[in-house]
Parts: sequence; structure tokens; C-alpha cells
Amino acid sequence: MKFTQKDQDAVNAIRALSVDMITNAHSGHPGFPLDAAPMMYLLYKNHLKVNPKDPYWINRDRFILSPGHGSSMLYATLHLAGYDISMHDLRDFRKLGSKTPGHPELGIPGVDAATGPLGQGFGMSVGMAMAEKHLSSLYNKEHCPIINNKVYTIVSDGDLMEGISHESASLAGHLKLNNLVVLFDSNNVTLDSSASKELSDNAGERFEAYGWNYLRVDDGNNLDELENALQVADDEENRPTFIEVKTVLGYGSPHANQHTVHGNPLTTDEVKETKEKLGWSHGPFEIPDNIYSTFSTIVKDGSREESNWKSVVAEYKNNYPVLSKRLFDNFENKAKVNDSDLNIEITDNEATRATMHKLLQATKKSSLEFWGGSADLSSSNKTYFENDDGFSDETPSNLNIFYGVREFAQAAAVNGITLYGGTKTFGSTFFVFSDYMRGAMRLAALQKIPSMFIFSHDSVALGQDGPTHQPIEQLDSLRAMPDMLVFRPADALEMVASWKFALNQNDRPVTFALSRQSLPTLRKYSDNIFKGVEKGGYILSCSQKDISDGIILATGSEVSLALDVQEILLKKNIDVSVVSIPSFELFNEQSNEYKESVLPSEVVNRMSIEMGSTQSWGQYTGLNGINIGINHFGASGDADLIMKDLGFDKNKIAQKYVEHFE
Amino acid sequence: MKFTQKDQDAVNAIRALSVDMITNAHSGHPGFPLDAAPMMYLLYKNHLKVNPKDPYWINRDRFILSPGHGSSMLYATLHLAGYDISMHDLRDFRKLGSKTPGHPELGIPGVDAATGPLGQGFGMSVGMAMAEKHLSSLYNKEHCPIINNKVYTIVSDGDLMEGISHESASLAGHLKLNNLVVLFDSNNVTLDSSASKELSDNAGERFEAYGWNYLRVDDGNNLDELENALQVADDEENRPTFIEVKTVLGYGSPHANQHTVHGNPLTTDEVKETKEKLGWSHGPFEIPDNIYSTFSTIVKDGSREESNWKSVVAEYKNNYPVLSKRLFDNFENKAKVNDSDLNIEITDNEATRATMHKLLQATKKSSLEFWGGSADLSSSNKTYFENDDGFSDETPSNLNIFYGVREFAQAAAVNGITLYGGTKTFGSTFFVFSDYMRGAMRLAALQKIPSMFIFSHDSVALGQDGPTHQPIEQLDSLRAMPDMLVFRPADALEMVASWKFALNQNDRPVTFALSRQSLPTLRKYSDNIFKGVEKGGYILSCSQKDISDGIILATGSEVSLALDVQEILLKKNIDVSVVSIPSFELFNEQSNEYKESVLPSEVVNRMSIEMGSTQSWGQYTGLNGINIGINHFGASGDADLIMKDLGFDKNKIAQKYVEHFE
Repeated sequence: MKFTQKDQDAVNAIRALSVDMITNAHSGHPGFPLDAAPMMYLLYKNHLKVNPKDPYWINRDRFILSPGHGSSMLYATLHLAGYDISMHDLRDFRKLGSKTPGHPELGIPGVDAATGPLGQGFGMSVGMAMAEKHLSSLYNKEHCPIINNKVYTIVSDGDLMEGISHESASLAGHLKLNNLVVLFDSNNVTLDSSASKELSDNAGERFEAYGWNYLRVDDGNNLDELENALQVADDEENRPTFIEVKTVLGYGSPHANQHTVHGNPLTTDEVKETKEKLGWSHGPFEIPDNIYSTFSTIVKDGSREESNWKSVVAEYKNNYPVLSKRLFDNFENKAKVNDSDLNIEITDNEATRATMHKLLQATKKSSLEFWGGSADLSSSNKTYFENDDGFSDETPSNLNIFYGVREFAQAAAVNGITLYGGTKTFGSTFFVFSDYMRGAMRLAALQKIPSMFIFSHDSVALGQDGPTHQPIEQLDSLRAMPDMLVFRPADALEMVASWKFALNQNDRPVTFALSRQSLPTLRKYSDNIFKGVEKGGYILSCSQKDISDGIILATGSEVSLALDVQEILLKKNIDVSVVSIPSFELFNEQSNEYKESVLPSEVVNRMSIEMGSTQSWGQYTGLNGINIGINHFGASGDADLIMKDLGFDKNKIAQKYVEHFE
Repeated sequence: MKFTQKDQDAVNAIRALSVDMITNAHSGHPGFPLDAAPMMYLLYKNHLKVNPKDPYWINRDRFILSPGHGSSMLYATLHLAGYDISMHDLRDFRKLGSKTPGHPELGIPGVDAATGPLGQGFGMSVGMAMAEKHLSSLYNKEHCPIINNKVYTIVSDGDLMEGISHESASLAGHLKLNNLVVLFDSNNVTLDSSASKELSDNAGERFEAYGWNYLRVDDGNNLDELENALQVADDEENRPTFIEVKTVLGYGSPHANQHTVHGNPLTTDEVKETKEKLGWSHGPFEIPDNIYSTFSTIVKDGSREESNWKSVVAEYKNNYPVLSKRLFDNFENKAKVNDSDLNIEITDNEATRATMHKLLQATKKSSLEFWGGSADLSSSNKTYFENDDGFSDETPSNLNIFYGVREFAQAAAVNGITLYGGTKTFGSTFFVFSDYMRGAMRLAALQKIPSMFIFSHDSVALGQDGPTHQPIEQLDSLRAMPDMLVFRPADALEMVASWKFALNQNDRPVTFALSRQSLPTLRKYSDNIFKGVEKGGYILSCSQKDISDGIILATGSEVSLALDVQEILLKKNIDVSVVSIPSFELFNEQSNEYKESVLPSEVVNRMSIEMGSTQSWGQYTGLNGINIGINHFGASGDADLIMKDLGFDKNKIAQKYVEHFE
């Protein structure tokens, strides 16, 4: 391919718009757009199979800008490429309520993932590539490649310093994701300093050690060199490709190659000087028509690609109506799991992780395209599908994902798979290690996507592994996270009910905290449970009086303990109700009337029981209440002894109730 | 060195004790001790400069078992080596209250770091090696090498899959930490499966890409080969060393090389069979005297080493009395920062991050050996020392640590440096990215060590960077963590007072959440502040009545807003007090009398104001109260507009108070 001045002008248009946006907003990061604009131009012009007029086309190539602080460059490119982002939107960059916020957010046309916290864009791109592999193997037919796209990602020095880049790159190399192309903007400068002050890695050798195809572009401004590398990447059949593109941070600006240009807007004079150096003679936010016309092939090519695909789809629908319906139902969130699908046998005593195991097998049989994995703890979490040897390059249609001891990459991949669409998926590990995944769990919540996170070993009752493995603050910590739905089911029945509810969530992630130990099945309360769980909190066992003497609130494994305490208190003529609150978030969303019916204002003798930190309980128990919990780290030993030692004993708790309230 | 049957017997003694402990406890991980015992033996017998009779000798070599699930092997070795761990303790393995819990905990003689959450042991070892470099460069004199030790670490496949292994290895390679030796127990098996199902990395090439010296031992049972590699590592002058030791998981057991032997105790019959294969003919927990005698050189050599060192110290004290006092004062936590050291100039309006910046410069001038860094945000966090070019292999006595975009490695290194002793240190980044560091912050709290974590940009008031960068749930999340002291200072004065308090903490970590934006200095309340901060919460501005009409509680940047609201309400004849609670943990530790004096029970009209999730406030505001906070994600835009949009406006809040309570 021969590139001309026309192409160079197009590249400079991206640069000029980006710095105009930043200088206009008095806020942003000009260094990166100035250096990486050539990559953006070539990707959109020649490689990305996208239709700007239909940004959610399911068979589009995905693009992720992992260093989200380069958002101005992304928005400028999307505008020029014909997405629904106007010049007005660009002028509103970083303004409240605009379509062009400081970091890319989901919902903006052309943005396939929210990025900002470094490393996670890369992690999500690995998940997207996994999803493409899985779905294409499940659905593609000869002559009908209904799913066949690639995932392109740009990463920065910062992304590659993050630990998640290791986990995700190692996973992608292991899975031989040849549909993944990563461009590394290698400019040797970070926000604080020259990268050489912080970093001596040989990125190429590192990615080769992971089994990637490594390519290098010595001059990131040389369009021919860049184009050649991208073509080699597109042709690679066996491995993911990592292209190191040597660039100059803040190219063209008076601060080129200095860390000061990383995060500080250019002054108006500096913008002028930069544009002169680049040979850009147009005013702020001014783009001549001939430049729009250079970009116009993107819409043309994309529309043609989508229209060709639609012909394939028509043929596919004809030949494979059942498969076709299943695929599109799943992409449109219409694939339902019926109650009858979830008919599982429940014993009188079982761990909620064991119930979950049965539910996973049952869910798999529904019309939901469902898969997931664990960070090397599937045998403990029990979150595996039976008789399934695992998703791999050789068996991409399998359902068990062996994430390895890579919690953070797992959570980011779950987000990537979920963003890709067409399947429902989960990740899992011990509850305490949710700490390792928090960054990605937050990004699931922030994007309002239905990622699922399943954690077992949800309390000190895991026993001998001791305090490093015993969650204390994890429940409260996740409850504090906006838009994250957390369930801690009390028994097998609450587990089933909350699973049913969770499967229907399409606009928020769900977290499950499950017991390692067996819990009694509360069959007697089955009706209350199936009516109550979907409200987050409910009266499990009412008092015999109209107005109870008090309320005991509990979650998870402590609910049956609360019932025992209720019984003891009743013998002392203290008649309390027991309220189970499997999900605080859900309960808090209910009407005031409903909440008042569960927790009547006049009943102020309130006690909570939960084996974890107590701070979130004050909202329900008030100043008069008492919280039975654990506000220190656990201990290694026999689970029953630990619980007794920490006071989780029905008699002791009943006594505390009496001492406090009577 | 010629190894004989005697050495082989010693290795088998570690194996035999380990499996006895696990089988006796019905809990533990036998696979790893069976394969890694030869490394443990050689390390303690020939390489580690330690004196089991003085396990806290400051110039000892440090040893970290990063895969903490191999604790039985560590305890067995420590017992045999002469540490204060008895056979009785070994029999009590994993029992409540024992000296031999499921994962190694700090406080057990010979345990240099608590491990269990994979990857962090490695991360802490990098911090320890950094501390040694820093202190030796500050204190060593010719002929008086008062600080000269190494750090040895064993890591597993799991540790190396974790993202933190990348961050830490990359940092260690960059810093050329030649005092660090890492042995990789390369057994190709994980808990879930054969590692080849999860992993295809070439570990050697990976570590070479980081600039490490890579060595390989083909047969982990061959003592000669192992010893040779360890000697090469000891002689390496320019780089950290990574020794890949090929081993067989569960060596000698009927399940050798299978993932089932990873985490399941052997049956009594299997133990018998294993011991037969190993040629071990002694009963459970039976160690013949000749084996103890093989290990006895460890105490002999160690005592001699320490006694030689003491001669050096004597000479050093003589020649350099001031330096010597400073060094030992710092190791014994006696180095004090006097109030006069912290005399800084405070302006009428400043961001708490700006005050912190001044405090860091002041603290550095005290007798405290003080240093720290940032994860590539020092210019934003303002957590750098002026006129200091940064800690590096060429300038190890410098104080600024450029951690790079490696938040998790930073936090683990802070823990490692703190565990090493002799200095006080901190890590920093934006508050929202505390999520990336949580695992290590938890391990600081669990170990009760005074690591310091300084976060700036503590609320949505950071503005344009938007929701991915705006903390919402981070405060509540960290408050839920046991033994973590969190401060969110209201102004420059509270910042100074809380810094003074924090510097005196020796048995818990401290976290600071600091504002990006300027805050008015509350000079008028100076006395209250300096008396109140050390109690965590206090009446900043009292009402004019004996019993106030209500209480407004706030932290950080919202405290001055609370004062404004108080003023507005007073004009409406509503006379409330304003309570500042810079640290919930500290306030909750106070006597009931004190707490009652700040928050009298009879005053039930209580409102909290804090720009974050509200769930932890219920404990203070009760069922009658109202919480002004943010329970959703933020937005990108001008900070003042965001705050107004979210209702953080004195008039609106005063109105809410009136509507709710009047």
C-alpha cells in the first residue's frame, strides 16, 4: 500500500483535534494522542471491521484503548470515522454530562469497553477474544462463518507494568488467541519520569516467553512500516500478536519526549507551535472536507462488510433455525432459564457451594449460552461443569475455563466476555481473594454489565487455612460498591432463589458469597424464602405476636443460628422475628412500605448476626442495636472450635440479647 | 561439597515430619513439602545466615516461603534447625491457638513474613532486598559492613502466575537487586490440574527479559546440582537470581505428579508407602539424634556469624556513635519525630496532599529513617522528597522510590521494607487505585506492621478524570478492614495532627485519604483539632446550648461544608454541633464515656456528610439519621459542578436537614 500526504493529513487531523479538545477543556493528556495517532488511523482505515453507523453490530471487530487517558484521541478518531460523535461533542470534552468524558465510558458509540484503570483494557480484550473463539466454535458452519472477528488493543508502558498484563498475556498465550492483536505504544515516558527510571523490561522477550508473536515497528510515524506489521498480525494463525511500536510522546509539541507532556494540557501558544511543526494549518476544531472524505471509506467498507455478513446470516437462519435463534436470543438477552431447568435435588444439609454446583449443571442445560471458570480452585469452589475437559485452543467449545492462579485476569476476562455478548459467564475463587479482583469487579459495576463472580469459603468457618484465607471485611467492602449486587444465601433454597434472580440481571454484576460448610436446609420456610429472596430481605420466621419483641437479622450461614436463638429466646418469653437479608442492595431498593413491614420502626431491639465486620449493619440495627460479628482477623483451627471461640454459639448469643435488651 | 546419606536423611526428615503433621491434622498440602525439602535443607544448612537462637537478629538473611500452604515444611525445617518450635508444636499443626497455624504467621520464630495469598511473599522479598540496599548504603563503612545480608525466597507455579510476580520481578530486575535469590519450585502441577492445562510460560526467558540471572536445576533431588546453583547465586554481583528447580510434586508418594496430592492429606497407609519409598524407617514424629546432629551446625554457624557481627558492631559504635545510635534507634522503633521537626508553614487554603508534601520534607529531617514512593503518580500525589533523584542501584541511599505503575508490588514492597525494619516507609497513588493494592494492605494489617499508604484524589472532587478515577466505596471498604487505621483529614491542621499520631503507630498500618482540591484551614478550631484528632472523632464546633439540637458529622473536605451548614441552621434557630471523625477506627476505640460526650445518646437528630458510600455511617447516625453521601459512581466534569450536581451544597444540605428533622 502506498501512503500519501492525504494519509498524513488524516493522521494529523486526529492529533489536531485531540490537542484542541484538551486545551479547550484545560484538562487531559496530550502526549499520547500526538504519538499514537498513526496507529489509530491505520486501524480504523484499513483493519477494523466496524460499521460506524451500527456500532453494536455483533460481528464487528472490537477495539479497546487500554490507556483510557488517551480518550481525546479515541473520540476524535470516532468522530472522523463517522460514529455518532459530533464536533460539538468534541468541544464538550471532559464537561459534565457530555458524550466525551475524561475516560472512555460504555454507551458512547464506538467504545467497546470503559477504560482508565491501567491494564484492565488489555485484560478485557483477552476475554473478548476468548468469547469469539468460544462462540465461533459453537456456531460457525462451513460457508457460514457467522462469528469471525478480531480484537485490537492499544496498550501503554503503564498497562504493561501492571500485574494484570502478565496474567492476561500469559493466559492469552496459553490459549493461543490468534484473533488478538495488541499494539504497544512504546514511548519510554511515564507520567512521573522517563520510563527508564522505572523500567528495564525487554517487552518483546517477555511476550515471546508467553508464546506470543512479537513484531516491532521502529518508527511509529512510518505508515508503511506500521501497515506491514498489522498485515502480518492479521495473517498470524497460531498465536496472539504483540506489536511494539516505537513512538515519541507528545510528537510535534515543544515538550516531545518529556514526561511533562503526559498529563498537562498544552498552552494555546504550544498548540500553535505543535500544529506548525506538524504542518497543520487549520484553526481549532476545523477539519477540511477532503479529510472527512479520506475517512469516509470506513463507513463505506463497514457497511459493505455488515451487509455481506447479513447475507451469511440469512443463509444461516435458513439452514440452522434452532442454532440461529439460540445465538441471537443470547446476544439480545432473551435466552431464558426456566424454573423447570433448575429443578435440582436438594438434601437436608448442604453447603451453598454444593448447591451452586448443581445449579451450574442445570443452567448449562438451558437455552442460555453459559460457561465459566475458576482461578485454579474449581475443585474447592465446585464451580466446574462435569464431564468437560476445559476450554482450550483445541477444544474451544468446552465450558470450563481454567484461568490458572490469575484472579485479576479472570475478572477482567469475565468482563470482556460479558461485553462481547452472546454468553453468560462467571469467575470464581475463595471469597478472600476477591481482594485481588476488586479493580475488575468495580469496572463491571461501573459498566453495569452482568458479569458473575462466585466465591466460596465465605467466612472463618473455612477453618484450618487460617486468617490469610478467612474473609472478614470482604462482604462489607463489596456491599459498599455501587451497582454491585451481592448475595450471601442462607441455605440451598435461598441459593436457588437468588440464582434465579441473578440470572435475570442484565444491567449489573452479581457476586455470590458461598459457604464451604454444610448448612441445614430450611424447608419449613420454603414459601417465605421463594417470595422473599427477590426482595433482598424478608421475614423468614415471624414472631407469634403482631409486634415482635425484637428482630434478629442475619445472612448466610448465620441464618440457621438466628433461628436457634429465636427458639431459645421464645422459651424465655422473648418473641422475636428472624429476618434474612441475603442481599443488602436489593433490600435497600424496595419501597419504604415493604422495608417498614420487615423492619417496623417501633421495634428497636435489633440484633445482627454475621461472621464478618459489622459496620454496614448499623443502617438496620441503629443506635440501640447490637451487632454480633467479627472485627478482627480469624485464626487457624477446627472450624467449629473457631466459631465457638468467637462467640458464634446459640446460647451465648441468646444471652447477649437478653443482657443487652432486657 | 560432597553430600552423603546423612544429608539425604536430613532431607527426608523434613519430608517425613511434614506429612506426619498434615496427616495428623487431617488438613494441609503434602505435595509441596515432598518435592521442595532438598531446597529447604540446603538453604538452612549452607546458605542462610541465621541464628535460630536469635531469630530477630537484624543482620540475618531473610527467608520467605511465598507458597504459604507449604507451612508444614517450613515449621518442620525450623524445628530441626533449632528454632523455638517443639515437636509438640508440630503435632499441634493447624490447631487453634498453636504456634503452627495453617499458613505462616508473623510472630512465629523464624517466620520473616506471613504468607498465604499467592505472589505476595515474593513481593515482600523484593521490599526486603530494597531495604537492605538502602540501609547498607546509608550505614556501612569500610571494614564495618554492619548491614549485609541476602533475601531468599521460594516461589511456586501459583506465585508466578499472579500478576504481582510480574510487577515485583520487573521492579527487582530494574533495581538490580543482587541480594535477592528466588528459587522456583517448578513442578508443573497446580491445585486444579497439571500446570500445562493453565500455563505455557517460559519462566526462564521471562525472568531474563526482566534482567535477572536465570539458573536451572534439572533435578531438584540432586543436592550437588542444587548446591552449585545456590553458590552461583551467592556470587552474582549485578542482578537478582532466579533458579528454576525442576521437582516432582508429592515426590515419593503414591500420588506423585498428580494434582490430587497438592491439597489433600495422605492417608495413614499412603504415608507408610511414601516413607518406604523414601527409605525412611522411623515412626510418626520420630527423629533420630543423628539427624538432629546433622542440623546442629545451623545454630553453631549462625551463632558464630552473629558473634562476628557483634564485634563489627562494637567497632562501629566506637567509630560512629551518632550513626550507630540512629541505626539501632530506628530498628528498635525508638527514633522519634519531635513536634518541632514538623513545624511547617500552613496557608489559609491548601489541599491536604499539599500539607502532606510539606510534612514529608519535614519528617525526613528528623532522626527517623524515612523514605517512600509512588506508583508513577508522585507529581500528582505530591509524595516526593524534593531534590532527590530517586533510589536506584547507583544511588541506593536516595529516598524517592519510583515504583512505576505497579501498585500491588509497591504495597507488598512497603510491607517488605517495614518487615525488614530500620526504616519507616510509605507507598502512594490515587485513592481509587487502593483497589489494586488491597491484598497487600490486608497483609500489612494482618501482620500488624506499620506500613503507610498515602492516597490523594480522595473523592469525586478530582473532577474531569471521571468515574474510573473517582473513589466512592474505597473509604468504607478500608474502614471495614480490621487493624487498618484510616485517616481522612479535614484540613491542613488535622493533616498535621493525624500525621503526628500516625508516625507513632508501631503495630498497625495507616492509610491516608487526601484531597486534591484546596480546603480552608480551620485555624479558629486549632485547639479542638489538636486535642481531638488523636481520639479519632471530636466536637469541632460545639452548639451554643448544653444539649445541641442535632449533630452534623463529617470527614475530610466535607467538614468545612458541615460548618457552613451549621451556620445556616443557626440562623434558622437550629443549633447543631459539628463533629469531625477523621478516623472511625480510632474513635471506636475510645471509652464509652468519651464517645457519649461527642455523640450524646439523647441527641438523635444526626446527619452525616461525606462524598462516598454511606453504609458505614449508620453506626453513628442510627435509624433516625440522614446520610448525605454518594451511593453511585461519579461523573467526568468540572469539580465544582459535579459537587453541586450531587447535592454537596450548603444550602441544599441545610434544607435537607430541616425537611428531615423539623
